[in-house]
Amino acid sequence: MANFADVAKQFVEFYYHQFDADRKQLAPLYILTIRQRENSMLTFESASIAGVGGIVEKLSCLPFEKVKHAVSTLDAQPSENGGILILVTGALLVDEEERSMNYSQAFQLLPDGAGSYFIYNDIFKLVFG
Amino acid sequence: MANFADVAKQFVEFYYHQFDADRKQLAPLYILTIRQRENSMLTFESASIAGVGGIVEKLSCLPFEKVKHAVSTLDAQPSENGGILILVTGALLVDEEERSMNYSQAFQLLPDGAGSYFIYNDIFKLVFG
Repeated sequence: MANFADVAKQFVEFYYHQFDADRKQLAPLYILTIRQRENSMLTFESASIAGVGGIVEKLSCLPFEKVKHAVSTLDAQPSENGGILILVTGALLVDEEERSMNYSQAFQLLPDGAGSYFIYNDIFKLVFG
Repeated sequence: MANFADVAKQFVEFYYHQFDADRKQLAPLYILTIRQRENSMLTFESASIAGVGGIVEKLSCLPFEKVKHAVSTLDAQPSENGGILILVTGALLVDEEERSMNYSQAFQLLPDGAGSYFIYNDIFKLVFG
């Protein structure tokens, strides 16, 4: 299995690329294929959702069409049970807005038992000020 | 055991209170008393340290005397093995500086097996822009 820092970097690149291209297609990232007891969680601007169905509906219904994330920093640590904790800071630009908004996002990835990872925890927060 | 959101709130209040009062005294928060195999981790401005000795030395040697954290937002989720993932955004003011700096900090707390929690993951990042 790859080094946790490499996995974190690849995950972050893929996640925001897919989010900006077509965020409805993020569902597979939140689905666990083996350990069915797990329930992925998203907290988006303090609204909490559990389960991939609700998460993808929430992401799909966000009030913008176009979005572009720019990652500024990415830090990762190994966590329990082979997991990876990631803290991203960055900026995003939506639709025709000219001013970007700063955000922070924490992910916890867990191994899916099939050689890959899924998103177990996802906390997104805009940063003002 | 208390609700994860209550634990997160109490932890965050205590952590920054203790940090601002005397950060050398944070050591007990990073020490696990029961499961000795665990090794707490801190990533501070992208420098990574494992183990409570190194963590407390790092925090003690930060290049400021006085510091005051102001938490803006706190979001928490339950994580694996009874853990709690927390994302804090806030601002901090050091020494005689008049301008505060924004920061984001992700913590993962794990149960210590004795009814309380310790910090297993800690990622701190200043946010510019």
